[in-house]
Amino acid sequence: MSSTLSLEEVAELVSGKLIVGDVPHDIQGVETLANATASHVSFLSNMKYKADLQTTQAGVVLLSHKADIPQGLDAAVIAVKDPYVAFTQLQRHFHPAPQSTGKIHASAAINDSASVADNVQVDANVSIAANVVIGKDSIIGAGCVLEEGVRIGEGCLIHPRVTLAKDTQLGDRVIIQSGAVIGSDGFGFAWTGDEFLKIPQVGRVVIEDDVEVGANTCIDRGAIGDTVIKAGAKLDNLIQVAHNVEIGYKSVIAGQAGIAGSTVIGNGCQMGAQSGVAGHLKLIDGTIVGAKAGVIGDTKQAGMVSGFPAVPHRQWLRASGMFDRLPEIWKKIRKLSDGAE
Amino acid sequence: MSSTLSLEEVAELVSGKLIVGDVPHDIQGVETLANATASHVSFLSNMKYKADLQTTQAGVVLLSHKADIPQGLDAAVIAVKDPYVAFTQLQRHFHPAPQSTGKIHASAAINDSASVADNVQVDANVSIAANVVIGKDSIIGAGCVLEEGVRIGEGCLIHPRVTLAKDTQLGDRVIIQSGAVIGSDGFGFAWTGDEFLKIPQVGRVVIEDDVEVGANTCIDRGAIGDTVIKAGAKLDNLIQVAHNVEIGYKSVIAGQAGIAGSTVIGNGCQMGAQSGVAGHLKLIDGTIVGAKAGVIGDTKQAGMVSGFPAVPHRQWLRASGMFDRLPEIWKKIRKLSDGAE
Amino acid sequence: MSSTLSLEEVAELVSGKLIVGDVPHDIQGVETLANATASHVSFLSNMKYKADLQTTQAGVVLLSHKADIPQGLDAAVIAVKDPYVAFTQLQRHFHPAPQSTGKIHASAAINDSASVADNVQVDANVSIAANVVIGKDSIIGAGCVLEEGVRIGEGCLIHPRVTLAKDTQLGDRVIIQSGAVIGSDGFGFAWTGDEFLKIPQVGRVVIEDDVEVGANTCIDRGAIGDTVIKAGAKLDNLIQVAHNVEIGYKSVIAGQAGIAGSTVIGNGCQMGAQSGVAGHLKLIDGTIVGAKAGVIGDTKQAGMVSGFPAVPHRQWLRASGMFDRLPEIWKKIRKLSDGAE
Repeated sequence: MSSTLSLEEVAELVSGKLIVGDVPHDIQGVETLANATASHVSFLSNMKYKADLQTTQAGVVLLSHKADIPQGLDAAVIAVKDPYVAFTQLQRHFHPAPQSTGKIHASAAINDSASVADNVQVDANVSIAANVVIGKDSIIGAGCVLEEGVRIGEGCLIHPRVTLAKDTQLGDRVIIQSGAVIGSDGFGFAWTGDEFLKIPQVGRVVIEDDVEVGANTCIDRGAIGDTVIKAGAKLDNLIQVAHNVEIGYKSVIAGQAGIAGSTVIGNGCQMGAQSGVAGHLKLIDGTIVGAKAGVIGDTKQAGMVSGFPAVPHRQWLRASGMFDRLPEIWKKIRKLSDGAE
Repeated sequence: MSSTLSLEEVAELVSGKLIVGDVPHDIQGVETLANATASHVSFLSNMKYKADLQTTQAGVVLLSHKADIPQGLDAAVIAVKDPYVAFTQLQRHFHPAPQSTGKIHASAAINDSASVADNVQVDANVSIAANVVIGKDSIIGAGCVLEEGVRIGEGCLIHPRVTLAKDTQLGDRVIIQSGAVIGSDGFGFAWTGDEFLKIPQVGRVVIEDDVEVGANTCIDRGAIGDTVIKAGAKLDNLIQVAHNVEIGYKSVIAGQAGIAGSTVIGNGCQMGAQSGVAGHLKLIDGTIVGAKAGVIGDTKQAGMVSGFPAVPHRQWLRASGMFDRLPEIWKKIRKLSDGAE
Repeated sequence: MSSTLSLEEVAELVSGKLIVGDVPHDIQGVETLANATASHVSFLSNMKYKADLQTTQAGVVLLSHKADIPQGLDAAVIAVKDPYVAFTQLQRHFHPAPQSTGKIHASAAINDSASVADNVQVDANVSIAANVVIGKDSIIGAGCVLEEGVRIGEGCLIHPRVTLAKDTQLGDRVIIQSGAVIGSDGFGFAWTGDEFLKIPQVGRVVIEDDVEVGANTCIDRGAIGDTVIKAGAKLDNLIQVAHNVEIGYKSVIAGQAGIAGSTVIGNGCQMGAQSGVAGHLKLIDGTIVGAKAGVIGDTKQAGMVSGFPAVPHRQWLRASGMFDRLPEIWKKIRKLSDGAE
């Protein structure tokens, strides 16, 4: 299959049904409704952009099979179960993930005891310490530092300037964005009455298969025992993950969120941007933490919590909707009190 | 003009009027009121420091032309329109910006296809990939990584350990502080019902002239189309800019703020520290987002919003001023209810 | 003293009293109650884990001398004043801090004018500029960048990929985690009416003895004069310290906190995660800022403040406990008003 696709090939790739149009154009890429031309496939997923259907120049548009074909749409239509997934599948066709060149740059400093598998790409100015193991087809970007005992699985993509500290373990197909620090010391000190005595942080960070970690995100090593990011979890940029945290399968953490020490985030959880969870807590599977929320207790059932201290989302919505009326409430109460007392 | 200035030269440089004193000292630098000596120029801009006028040892002080000359001030005075701007102009005289040495460090790894203009400085352990273009007089600090297709304009200052990912575009006179990551993948996944499918992030980051980006700030590349930082915008440290965000001309974003995907920040906007804006929004020109605020809707008129969810600033001020009275409110209501029911 | 300890040696090391058991096992390390085996010492400090005493397999457990020996505990017990401190002392015995190898990696780029003391370890791809001074027994991790005029004391541990910008000063035994940026330009611009004029940031960062700085934390250099982190202060990850901030002796700042320009944090202060302090303020010694709090005024007495704007912690607790009742309050008031008017 060449990169360019016929309409039929597009439909097949996304398991969709071509319901309008026999436009002759080959499809060469994906674009937004606003920017697409006749050789592009576009899609409608976020209803905010619905009006763009009227004016799009796209050759073909992916729509939900439940959607009506809008009048005035001047494009072929492929009906799919989920336009966003279909768009993603096409994008992955036109833009396959980077593949290892298998080249080791001459400037990389690789310890003799390191074990680098076949077809691993190591870019310029990388530092690889003793006893590091790197699985086949992985890419180590320029300026990365892999400390002693690091193990990286197969097909990983470590973007430039990432630190994998001592004994950090990565599964297969892990992606780490640039600037991330994995395995920094946890923030642990014992107050002696006179000074803060540093507690050696002797655990590791273990990251399972198919995890992605965002740019400049920090994941601290365990104090005792490991910090664990389970398979399929996705972490955005500038997140703080403290020592001995566990993040469950396929949980998703948005940018600038923070998780304090020893807290367990369950499976299939979500944390919104700039949210935080206090230490030594347990968020049950399916917990959703709203943006900017601060969770200070365990969650006992799946669903969304918001605010600080976090409460069930609807409760927070109702209360925060009233917040601006506080002056009015105060005024009414004073009036009532004056009348009543 | 030598670095040392006479009083007359100071006055001329800041377009000010020398209204007191014929102190013979030459001025060799700028200092705070508290730390200045006779060979320093100082200034009063923040009224918090007004009392320091009584005790300063400065040779000359920059004051607003609207200010009264305080009794007991034992220094020459130069009256200016804006003391803070005048101070800045003098500081720029005494401390000119770093100039390129034009030297390429031997340890830099520069791909043969890269185009490096005259008088570019490239420091130690820099990695420059294929087809990178760097304009004249730019400085690339130690340990920077410039991926394939990066273009840097003239007179840029890229501090050490910055990542410019694939195809990132910088205008002229752009300053990037250390540790910033420009062009990391946006956080985009499609949920298939079983897993998160990574959406290739194929847009770029485009940064226009005279932008400054702070330390360890992250700017994600567009998913489709570009993330754009317009001319003259200034971003502080540890900021998260998600994919396809647009930041307008001369907008200013304070530290640890975050902007979610596809949001457009207008021209001349300001965002306070630790504030956030949700995705797919439009902040109109002149919007000011208060510190720690969370904006979840478009803004329709210039001015300040605060709180989370953000409301007009004065409204938030009034309401948050009442927040502490909630227990009192509750008590009064219970009393009234008991009486009334 | 070998790494393995007898029970008596454990008791001596932690100044504790062996009150139960003459278990023959040598102690080879420290583990949590849940994970310990017969050759481990464990401890109870956080009462959340008290139930684990019933099931632990630890050879010996550190308990507070005030605690009762729980029934069913099948381990030796050492009674100590503070189990957390005792645990830390043992951890430091079994896991001593990294010691310099005294080796300079061949790939390090070290300027001829730099002064590197005896027994300094410099790892791969480090850049050391002119006039840098490094004290004995210090370790400079891979990929670090030390700009001109940096001074590092004795016994410092600079983890990989740290930037110490021009003229940064470190005392003795300072630890900097990976990715931290020390000495980036402060965020200072003067608005001329037409553009933001960059104010040269000509101060330094001065970090005193025994300070620890977390991963990807940013400490800006002073605008004029220095940013100062006093002896024994501990900073976690992803913190923003703006120009001319001063952090007092043995103060502790948690992850993702931010401190705006020229603010003075007193001695023995604490800041919670994701908290912030506005600029030009003074927090008195012993101030504790709650997680996510935003401080916008000076504090006048030791103790905890919370919320945004921050108020005394108990006041915030009471008010935020009422927040969810706002809809109920509103309902009651409307009812009362209808009745009363």
